[in-house]
Amino acid sequence: MDLDRCRRYLLARIGLELALAVVIGCRPAAHDQDAARVEESFAEPRTPAPTVVPMETPLPARSGSWWDVPYPQPFDASRLGPPLERLRADGNRLVDPDGDTVILQGVNISDPDKLERGGHWHRRHFEVIREWGANVVRIPVHPVAWRGRGKDEYFELLDQAVVWATELGMYLIIDWHSIGNLATELFQHPMYQTSRAETYDFWRSIAFRYQGIPTVAFYELFNEPTVYNNNLGTLSWDEWKAINEQMITIIDSHDHEVIPLIAGFNWGYDLTSVARDPIDHDGVGYVSHPYPQKTTAPFEVHWDEAFGFVAGRYPLLATEIGYMAPDDPGAHVPVKDDGSYGPRITDYLAKKGASWTAWCFDPEWPPQLIRDWDYTPTEAGLHFRSVMQGRVPTK
Amino acid sequence: MDLDRCRRYLLARIGLELALAVVIGCRPAAHDQDAARVEESFAEPRTPAPTVVPMETPLPARSGSWWDVPYPQPFDASRLGPPLERLRADGNRLVDPDGDTVILQGVNISDPDKLERGGHWHRRHFEVIREWGANVVRIPVHPVAWRGRGKDEYFELLDQAVVWATELGMYLIIDWHSIGNLATELFQHPMYQTSRAETYDFWRSIAFRYQGIPTVAFYELFNEPTVYNNNLGTLSWDEWKAINEQMITIIDSHDHEVIPLIAGFNWGYDLTSVARDPIDHDGVGYVSHPYPQKTTAPFEVHWDEAFGFVAGRYPLLATEIGYMAPDDPGAHVPVKDDGSYGPRITDYLAKKGASWTAWCFDPEWPPQLIRDWDYTPTEAGLHFRSVMQGRVPTK
Amino acid sequence: MDLDRCRRYLLARIGLELALAVVIGCRPAAHDQDAARVEESFAEPRTPAPTVVPMETPLPARSGSWWDVPYPQPFDASRLGPPLERLRADGNRLVDPDGDTVILQGVNISDPDKLERGGHWHRRHFEVIREWGANVVRIPVHPVAWRGRGKDEYFELLDQAVVWATELGMYLIIDWHSIGNLATELFQHPMYQTSRAETYDFWRSIAFRYQGIPTVAFYELFNEPTVYNNNLGTLSWDEWKAINEQMITIIDSHDHEVIPLIAGFNWGYDLTSVARDPIDHDGVGYVSHPYPQKTTAPFEVHWDEAFGFVAGRYPLLATEIGYMAPDDPGAHVPVKDDGSYGPRITDYLAKKGASWTAWCFDPEWPPQLIRDWDYTPTEAGLHFRSVMQGRVPTK
Repeated sequence: MDLDRCRRYLLARIGLELALAVVIGCRPAAHDQDAARVEESFAEPRTPAPTVVPMETPLPARSGSWWDVPYPQPFDASRLGPPLERLRADGNRLVDPDGDTVILQGVNISDPDKLERGGHWHRRHFEVIREWGANVVRIPVHPVAWRGRGKDEYFELLDQAVVWATELGMYLIIDWHSIGNLATELFQHPMYQTSRAETYDFWRSIAFRYQGIPTVAFYELFNEPTVYNNNLGTLSWDEWKAINEQMITIIDSHDHEVIPLIAGFNWGYDLTSVARDPIDHDGVGYVSHPYPQKTTAPFEVHWDEAFGFVAGRYPLLATEIGYMAPDDPGAHVPVKDDGSYGPRITDYLAKKGASWTAWCFDPEWPPQLIRDWDYTPTEAGLHFRSVMQGRVPTK
Repeated sequence: MDLDRCRRYLLARIGLELALAVVIGCRPAAHDQDAARVEESFAEPRTPAPTVVPMETPLPARSGSWWDVPYPQPFDASRLGPPLERLRADGNRLVDPDGDTVILQGVNISDPDKLERGGHWHRRHFEVIREWGANVVRIPVHPVAWRGRGKDEYFELLDQAVVWATELGMYLIIDWHSIGNLATELFQHPMYQTSRAETYDFWRSIAFRYQGIPTVAFYELFNEPTVYNNNLGTLSWDEWKAINEQMITIIDSHDHEVIPLIAGFNWGYDLTSVARDPIDHDGVGYVSHPYPQKTTAPFEVHWDEAFGFVAGRYPLLATEIGYMAPDDPGAHVPVKDDGSYGPRITDYLAKKGASWTAWCFDPEWPPQLIRDWDYTPTEAGLHFRSVMQGRVPTK
Repeated sequence: MDLDRCRRYLLARIGLELALAVVIGCRPAAHDQDAARVEESFAEPRTPAPTVVPMETPLPARSGSWWDVPYPQPFDASRLGPPLERLRADGNRLVDPDGDTVILQGVNISDPDKLERGGHWHRRHFEVIREWGANVVRIPVHPVAWRGRGKDEYFELLDQAVVWATELGMYLIIDWHSIGNLATELFQHPMYQTSRAETYDFWRSIAFRYQGIPTVAFYELFNEPTVYNNNLGTLSWDEWKAINEQMITIIDSHDHEVIPLIAGFNWGYDLTSVARDPIDHDGVGYVSHPYPQKTTAPFEVHWDEAFGFVAGRYPLLATEIGYMAPDDPGAHVPVKDDGSYGPRITDYLAKKGASWTAWCFDPEWPPQLIRDWDYTPTEAGLHFRSVMQGRVPTK
């Protein structure tokens, strides 16, 4: 048949097909995953990422229809009231839409999976943190919990955090809370066990889910890289940089506005390689975890060398700081301190214009900020709360 | 003892051992896996691959004797009547043993696992395809189905396909039906989830099973490579080429006659990199999936640039073509078309001397060739059937 | 508060905290994994590895508290009486603490998991081996058994072997008994299936567990590398060398005294690449598995070329030798022989100053050294026993 007749025929068929679809309950079939193909088809140069992006979900049981597993959905922004202002990296500063500098100070919570199991996953948890003066919360997602709970159920927890944080005016850092070596895929403890593929998939999933939500301002790509004195094999900066850039490429393709945060070696303390060979991507920040026993006096000199210098070029966030008396329950290297560390580190970070989140708003995860589930502050908690509430002048 | 005595003694022992073996039910013990060692031992230069090659099988339960898991067996060719003629790549043509050009035209079936679950895995399915004029069938093996069913059970399905196709005079393309990025191991949907190791093992298992069976003429190594606008990370042609060459090395070591088919980027549409850097292996073909919305008018010009030029140097197969009206149930980018695509693509491929298989001989997997399980053709089905039956002259 | 007051306050808190800990049953909390951070924190240059090193353990069930999974413990050396003398590599010799040359001759047992399932995991098994004159036992740990039994349970078996071997004065070779290609992660049979990550983790776990125990003198990194005529893809010496060096780095960080043993291609027979490009690490040895059918006459010439030359520069151990009559039950390539191989190989190895362990002290794993569970020697068993007992003069 000629093309015009063909077109007329096809148009006629559409009505028939739709009627038939109603009758036999036909739903869009398996090949719908190709919905975004055209974006790449025409791409010269690359077009923007599509809004809806397929992702991994748990493998269905054999009895299921694996070809009908639904594609994931992004977070429903209509659950939020007025959004927070979008933050971005501008030179070495975090800035708001007016270009004004933003300094973030807040806390780490424990893993939402741990809080939910213990009956502490409540809006109240976030309210107290806000009352302490925090404007940012870091959420450590442990690979073992992410896998164990499953993406869909884990997203339910994170979604609630987004709602609560938005209502309370706090930004979120989502932190892939592993410790170890992604090159050899050896990690410090089973709770940190992951792989490069799972790590890439985590960021693909997270970035798809929270694209365009200003509350979720930061993605801390990998909590603490370490080779553990070679117990975990070797990892060069070149290798680590390439892995980070792969993560950033995946994230950036979903969400060009979120700020990726990159960690250095020695359990996320040491950023010295950034001086000669920074990550090849604009709009990123760097993190350090300068616990008290990571170095010795003169602290400020050593801190400058290990990570502080980065604050001259890039946004710097100390996403884990904290301390406790050597004989407190749970005290361990490198967090033991006589108390002098508290004002020293907050003053230092203030001078550097760096943001920070203290570890940890859970009475069971040392160094603790709270003593109990009545949220009684520890000594460290008192100090960091005072700073966040502006009652401790910084030098 | 001296060697002669030793030999006599050993010969005497053989009878005793064999008798003992009968009595105590002794079977060949675990070290039998070494049966093929000598091939490599003496290999200078490399000897041909041994006929029987061990492979992976599902891990036995802990209560089992893991050292007694049997090695796999190749397909039993005695189940077949007269074999089909062996096809091979000769320059840019597929040829039969006389060197005459062979053009293949056929269809994709849905995954055999899906057909079997739905009660449609019958010889009749293949008979209808033959009645439509097809001389080739493409079988998409989805990783999720391969893993879920297990190798042994999946081979039962593929074995039946080999029997039916041989009887009916149709060639088979076995297609590892994944979509995504084998470098990052991120994929478009859970049904496509795999890994490099599993992919290599798939081809090792398939090539071992169907070595020397001319019906199984083609191995399409990976359905649709794509980085999905970087949602799946990055993948260079160098990386992709190396992965393909590893697959081909594995296949070639089992079966030097089968024709591997290689796909390019953009969901298997774009073969432009082949111009400057083809796969380093003789006897291969290339594939493209030029669905209607992969490009715009003038189509023939764009098709030439993206994949058609390959037909001047290598066998070219368009292993997925198809279309449907934009409002048909299940219609999606990139398969929506007003109907003009049908004759345009089949004419184009005829001019190029390219073979093709239309997608998809299942009423639930769009773009469909059939409307129902009575095999009523869709509009696209009518067109492709007419071409296969020679009732539509090509220009 | 000022620092002195802070210190006094903290000291006062310690008593309160400890009292509270007793009352509420508080145990050291999750962050204890950081206990060793300070070692790296201060590391310039690298400090010695910490004594207690975290490792992987099986993932806890979801209902468990994943943050409380205990860290592993090293082998309790107090279970041993007087330790064996520490062996080390000195040039091309194995030497004792006095620098005197040590030649080791012994047997392979079958996998401890197999022995335990069959009711043969007894001290008596090791006693008979000692009676045969052995001063070394090679223990092949199959990946399937390691995973199936789980680390903790597998360590119970290995711990017993360490106790028995120490009491009986025999050294141990722990052998990661895989066969195949760690680059493509394809293996000869399911019992050998592993991955690079699991292999690295195995050596991390083993080296942590048995650090400082002289009985566990050798770690044979990977039993038999092979590409199986490319059935398992490709593997270059550069790739293989890098994987070995990664394993050695991990082991060396835990235990600087143990002697890693490296295998070459062709099922661990061929060490020719060592001539031009040896492993970049001191204190290692090399292994070969020169079964009778790995080459042809003149054997000594071919053996020199394939592996014997290594004995001029490095300690050489033939960790699998053995033979059986061609018609004995379980006979297979490459172990079939008329009996002339026995004295030929032991004489050759004696001339080279090489150590060896014969395969296999199990009546079901050919080529067998024993016929039954009464430990009746086979022909090969008689030969190797005579050599170990010094009743066969070497030429």
